[in-house]
Amino acid sequence: MKKLEEYVRSIPDFPEEGIIFRDITSVLQDKDGLRLAIDQMQETLNGVDFDIVLGPESRGFIFGVPIAYNLNKAFVPVRKKGKLPCETVEMEYDLEYGTATIEIHKDAIKPGQKVVIIDDLIATGGTIEAITKLVKQLGGEVVKIVFLMELEGLKGREKLAGYDVRSIISYPGK
Amino acid sequence: MKKLEEYVRSIPDFPEEGIIFRDITSVLQDKDGLRLAIDQMQETLNGVDFDIVLGPESRGFIFGVPIAYNLNKAFVPVRKKGKLPCETVEMEYDLEYGTATIEIHKDAIKPGQKVVIIDDLIATGGTIEAITKLVKQLGGEVVKIVFLMELEGLKGREKLAGYDVRSIISYPGK
Repeated sequence: MKKLEEYVRSIPDFPEEGIIFRDITSVLQDKDGLRLAIDQMQETLNGVDFDIVLGPESRGFIFGVPIAYNLNKAFVPVRKKGKLPCETVEMEYDLEYGTATIEIHKDAIKPGQKVVIIDDLIATGGTIEAITKLVKQLGGEVVKIVFLMELEGLKGREKLAGYDVRSIISYPGK
Repeated sequence: MKKLEEYVRSIPDFPEEGIIFRDITSVLQDKDGLRLAIDQMQETLNGVDFDIVLGPESRGFIFGVPIAYNLNKAFVPVRKKGKLPCETVEMEYDLEYGTATIEIHKDAIKPGQKVVIIDDLIATGGTIEAITKLVKQLGGEVVKIVFLMELEGLKGREKLAGYDVRSIISYPGK
């Protein structure tokens, strides 16, 4: 049986020179790959007590929603600024060049609720660090953070110190 | 028991005056709402023979992936131009002001494969019409198109004539 990491396609020099892009569409477009990815991420939540899966736009939706459905939890989308129609909390964070702002609906997390964050990839960790701050601001508690892939060379975990972070596939480089 | 349509939050004058925005985040952030939405969309596929679920970025991912997982199918993301790393086919389509371009990986659909398109909402139908053309271009066959919500007043179905289109919740207006 094919292993999960064999479904990931690596594309050199995308989106720019020197970067190896780890493509998850090759995982998703194979029914066995899709199942393996979701099952393996979901297994890391065995025995974890939580209320909400939170996933950032748009690849966090891909893995977050099926796991929320399977475990009978709510799903809260984190979106880029301007897309959520009701009252939000927002957080700006640094990108390589410039900044980005993400938002969560204010009523999406109630004080005391336990949150699991799910995304496809941890690179520098900036987005997820911003999300943890928003969850805290709303009175929620991040009990686990799960990624399909991790680029260890970018040291994103350092930004998430103190949190229970898991990734299924680790790449040593960038 | 609460009905699916009661989970949808309607927001007047978003994103602009005169538009009633149908918000799905209120469905997703309730575990029962999320389950109902996915189950009812999935039920429309009972007895349908197909290979691939195809969903447009980013809200098509929300409903498309869990249904693909549950029915043991592949998932193919349709993305905005420039985000997919390998060779793509692309299609430009009209928006209210200007145009947009979407892409699918060329190797994502093989000739003869049967495709179900899933999205949250049909409004004018422009995006989905463009997707049906891309599927045809790759030699695939669209066997069903399923939406959570339909804005009947915008007559999106007219653009999808000849296809088997289902929506779970219909709103008479825009």
